[in-house]
Amino acid sequence: MDTALKTLSVHINLQGAKIVAETTPGKTREIALPNHKEQVSHIAVDVGGSLAKVVYITKDNEGGSRFNFTRFETKNIDECISFLSFLCQEYENSRQEGPAMCVMATGGGAFKYYDQLRSRLGVEIVREDEMECLIVGLDFFITEIPDEVFTYSENEPMKFCEPLPNIYPYLLCNIGSGVSMIKVSGPEKFERIGGSSLGGGTLWGLMSILTNAKTFDEMLEMSKSGDNTAVDMLVGDIYGTNYEKMCLKSTTIASTFGKVFQKKLTKKYDTIQDFQSCFSPQDIAKSLLYAISNNIGQIAYLQARIHELETIYFGGTYIRGHPLTMHTLSYAIRFWSGGTKKAYFLRHEGYLGAVGAFLKHQPRNWGRRKTSRVNGML
Amino acid sequence: MDTALKTLSVHINLQGAKIVAETTPGKTREIALPNHKEQVSHIAVDVGGSLAKVVYITKDNEGGSRFNFTRFETKNIDECISFLSFLCQEYENSRQEGPAMCVMATGGGAFKYYDQLRSRLGVEIVREDEMECLIVGLDFFITEIPDEVFTYSENEPMKFCEPLPNIYPYLLCNIGSGVSMIKVSGPEKFERIGGSSLGGGTLWGLMSILTNAKTFDEMLEMSKSGDNTAVDMLVGDIYGTNYEKMCLKSTTIASTFGKVFQKKLTKKYDTIQDFQSCFSPQDIAKSLLYAISNNIGQIAYLQARIHELETIYFGGTYIRGHPLTMHTLSYAIRFWSGGTKKAYFLRHEGYLGAVGAFLKHQPRNWGRRKTSRVNGML
Repeated sequence: MDTALKTLSVHINLQGAKIVAETTPGKTREIALPNHKEQVSHIAVDVGGSLAKVVYITKDNEGGSRFNFTRFETKNIDECISFLSFLCQEYENSRQEGPAMCVMATGGGAFKYYDQLRSRLGVEIVREDEMECLIVGLDFFITEIPDEVFTYSENEPMKFCEPLPNIYPYLLCNIGSGVSMIKVSGPEKFERIGGSSLGGGTLWGLMSILTNAKTFDEMLEMSKSGDNTAVDMLVGDIYGTNYEKMCLKSTTIASTFGKVFQKKLTKKYDTIQDFQSCFSPQDIAKSLLYAISNNIGQIAYLQARIHELETIYFGGTYIRGHPLTMHTLSYAIRFWSGGTKKAYFLRHEGYLGAVGAFLKHQPRNWGRRKTSRVNGML
Repeated sequence: MDTALKTLSVHINLQGAKIVAETTPGKTREIALPNHKEQVSHIAVDVGGSLAKVVYITKDNEGGSRFNFTRFETKNIDECISFLSFLCQEYENSRQEGPAMCVMATGGGAFKYYDQLRSRLGVEIVREDEMECLIVGLDFFITEIPDEVFTYSENEPMKFCEPLPNIYPYLLCNIGSGVSMIKVSGPEKFERIGGSSLGGGTLWGLMSILTNAKTFDEMLEMSKSGDNTAVDMLVGDIYGTNYEKMCLKSTTIASTFGKVFQKKLTKKYDTIQDFQSCFSPQDIAKSLLYAISNNIGQIAYLQARIHELETIYFGGTYIRGHPLTMHTLSYAIRFWSGGTKKAYFLRHEGYLGAVGAFLKHQPRNWGRRKTSRVNGML
């Protein structure tokens, strides 16, 4: 068993924890904690390159509590800090005897914006290591929350999984603006084995230029109706047929955007509109989504093979429960591993780090951690 | 020794073969064959997704011969076939007693354009497998041509290598419109172990849209003076510093194009000019060149590690002797392998397949191949 989680259970009662039915469409679902009654003296924030994720606990109407999840764009960090400040004040207003407020912070922004956080919030800011938080958060979701972890296929888009008796070792492939791949061999035993700069930031950046979409959700919506073969070069475009000898199907993508250069040179255009009369935003969106997702899937598979890991979890705000993204990642893992390795997803995929930071809270004057943890195990 | 090359030596005298000093800038250098006197009855073409490469032998002024290399865009396949037709007619006009002309063809286009080639050229077209040709061509360059194979570093851009006593096994990473990775364990013993759709076609396509460059060389030129940190998100942009615990430097690229989405949403533009006032074409070009090259280098390294291959050759028309490309590929291999694996380049990197097809020529009525090859070994 994971000591970190045992430690947690001293503070937060997880008995009966479960995901709440969707209330506000598009909003990340809350997690009900029907048996947790006490006021909670901390909140957590994970500030990444593009998004800042906030996790906090509130009382519900039935006397229990709820885990809440919300996010801000990092470029609007002021807005995020204002929200944290609001949560701090709310706690202070209703505080009876409990300890002072504490903000757990992780992600690169916990360092970059540390001074700003401290001066504007006026409470203790505890910084925790990003990778460690990702793992603690993931272990929590895997072991404690029912209907959280699932595999994806077109026939069965969300097949929920029971936690395995032994969850280690596994690979966590976390996709935010960039990609981190972390090998986890036990509780708090992990190693960053690789990464890629081709991640969410790349997809969002390229799509924002080439499709003129205003939000990431708009881009994802576009990709659904696109036809990538209008821009991608397939094996069939080069061979006129399958490449039999190498078992490459005619429909395999040989070159992402492989048709663009040739088309471009035969047409002239100066405005985005001219350009889009030649290439539909939908087709562009689908091609890019395939390319980035497939590339991440391939690298994740290769890393998993080198490190002999059967189980691959995909986390990070890149995924957003988008079917085409999960399909491509799942397909890549299945294809490259010959079906021996599996891709797993999470409903709260974007909040692993924030939840991990939340769970790492130890009240002040709570004794040396090591001791507390051993006690927690009893 | 490679039997295929031994076989070849029956027909083409390679004694004293060497690369000719540059005559026309930008043109691929010829290879002098001072001791080959006979007329050669075949030419070879490798038709890929974007480019068609042609290899043929001509007489030189000193009584010897020369290997010639030239290429066409595949979309102008008619122009390429006209050139082949010209070479066929020239041979026919000067033919004394020799055999009839034969065109060796490989690459996807050898299948896609087979009927066109046959009807317009009116000579025998022999199709050869693309991967096989790449390997035969590479083995030829490695073993027979001095000052062909080199490693790249900024201090020593072209460090030429003597052929190793045992050249196998190795990984060939061939980058054209798409990428193929081939594990070679002996002469004619090879396996396609992977590939990527993020290759030359992707870079050319994206650059042609985003930089408005008209040719690939123009794009490469642009990339030299660019500053990718204007568009890429670095570890330092997220952390404000190094990510010490994970040994990630502040200058490491965390997310390719990671700054674009944010900037884009704060500015409005409808024309390419507006867009380019926000992002310089040079910066875009450098970022994309880094991203694609680094990604290929990383996947090549991972494949090499899985298959226990120390030596990685990079071939294909993507490279074009461009310093920044070779630097990035070399750096990726060195970085990921901790210096245990090396990237090798070739002066005729784009002509492996065409030369391989050329070398696979066996005159008609020349007996069963197996027998001939055994004879060639004696």
